Amino acid sequence: MRTIRLWINYDGSDLSGWQRQAGARSVQEDLEQAVHILTGSRVTVHGSGRTDAGVHAIAQSAHIRIENGPAVRVLHKALNSLLAPDIRVLGAREVSAKFHARFSARGKHYMFRISCGGVKKALGRNFCYWHGSSLDLRAMRQASQHFRGRQDFAAMANNPGYRHKRPTVRTISSVHLVRNKHGMDFHVQGDGFLYNMVRTMAGTLVEVGRGRREPDWVGSVLASKDRGQAGPTLPSHGLFLVKVLYPAEFGGDVPPHFSLNTVRRNQGLA
Amino acid sequence: MRTIRLWINYDGSDLSGWQRQAGARSVQEDLEQAVHILTGSRVTVHGSGRTDAGVHAIAQSAHIRIENGPAVRVLHKALNSLLAPDIRVLGAREVSAKFHARFSARGKHYMFRISCGGVKKALGRNFCYWHGSSLDLRAMRQASQHFRGRQDFAAMANNPGYRHKRPTVRTISSVHLVRNKHGMDFHVQGDGFLYNMVRTMAGTLVEVGRGRREPDWVGSVLASKDRGQAGPTLPSHGLFLVKVLYPAEFGGDVPPHFSLNTVRRNQGLA
Repeated sequence: MRTIRLWINYDGSDLSGWQRQAGARSVQEDLEQAVHILTGSRVTVHGSGRTDAGVHAIAQSAHIRIENGPAVRVLHKALNSLLAPDIRVLGAREVSAKFHARFSARGKHYMFRISCGGVKKALGRNFCYWHGSSLDLRAMRQASQHFRGRQDFAAMANNPGYRHKRPTVRTISSVHLVRNKHGMDFHVQGDGFLYNMVRTMAGTLVEVGRGRREPDWVGSVLASKDRGQAGPTLPSHGLFLVKVLYPAEFGGDVPPHFSLNTVRRNQGLA
Repeated sequence: MRTIRLWINYDGSDLSGWQRQAGARSVQEDLEQAVHILTGSRVTVHGSGRTDAGVHAIAQSAHIRIENGPAVRVLHKALNSLLAPDIRVLGAREVSAKFHARFSARGKHYMFRISCGGVKKALGRNFCYWHGSSLDLRAMRQASQHFRGRQDFAAMANNPGYRHKRPTVRTISSVHLVRNKHGMDFHVQGDGFLYNMVRTMAGTLVEVGRGRREPDWVGSVLASKDRGQAGPTLPSHGLFLVKVLYPAEFGGDVPPHFSLNTVRRNQGLA
């Protein structure tokens, strides 16, 4: 039995999310169908976790276990030839049977993109959250520091199940707000995320950015463990799963070609 | 009679282009329909020029002439409420009756976006041309200098009509190749462009960038006035109409909110 790790890039605009469901296109189902055509086997494509409808992935991680089938380089190209253009396999690698896209993951890196001010544009509308007025980046950076470290994120989770039944303690290892051409990108990395957590963190920071709350208010929201205290959950189309983190033995966080690409770029675009 | 200038942003992915045509969505038709609902008048929305299916506009320019109707600020918002999200009015301004979006234009600024190397991605696929290998930016910059100045661009036009009947001399005032995160943006500004001219200029530069031709080859292609000598016409989804240039009396090149936005950003995102 072979275990093949896949890195997947998708545009969530026309997808119902990662998980297969009746009557809607999903990344998982499209991948499973392509694997079936290629190998003749009906296997489950295990992802690192679900993403909601509209959410994008720069490099989602997944794995399949198959009996035979072509070499990974061939499999990689063949999968892309079968998939719709809004789902692309960035890389494939044969890994140890111990690898599991979900259970081996040590963390995830998400980005939430905000466009501020001016008029809402047509271009890019599916790839950012548009906020009509300016936002105070300095205050938001200060507020975001409250998210760091190991703590209870119940106030940032929409699924009430989390509050009562499942543990809601997570460790956020890094938080960065990076100014971009149209607004800002909120980057957050942690060992795991509750349902709608990043979108609610972003919505809570926006409350600070628009001046409705002081930066330290975020600390008290977290301490309350009450979702009702936090800001709104921002729309899914601003959210990107950047990458999934694994121990080095499983082939690193970014697909094989990514480093190659950097080398090429350094050579070609000097 | 009022003359109203409009700045329009659109995502060309699902549009058949600017010009109205039977059985397909176009920017012009959608705008005319919205104006009709608002004012009760069936007027023509005059654009600065056509864009093909798949081509995007950062700030296309257009005008309408109407007898009455609401104030421009109201009209602007009302049009957006009637339009699909892939077409947005960025600004509206009442201008002198002498203004004509096409005949008053002094020039246009286009951008062609190229993504190089690595694997083709799902994200951004409708907003750039993907080239599978690296490109020599330095050689392309050198080659692009041949496009500057007043000369015959017959070799860069796809419509054979241009070659025989209409003048094919144009003045290109500036050409820039700007490296970006994923590849490069080819910016070109001139007093006018022939059919498919920017996409063919980009395709010709790519021939140089991939090492198949020397930079000075571009000069001989232009001198030949023969379309068959040039590189391929690259796909429409890499092309953006950035802005249309007019004399200052007509309200500048960028919509009213754009400068406002910059001010806001400077204040808000310090």
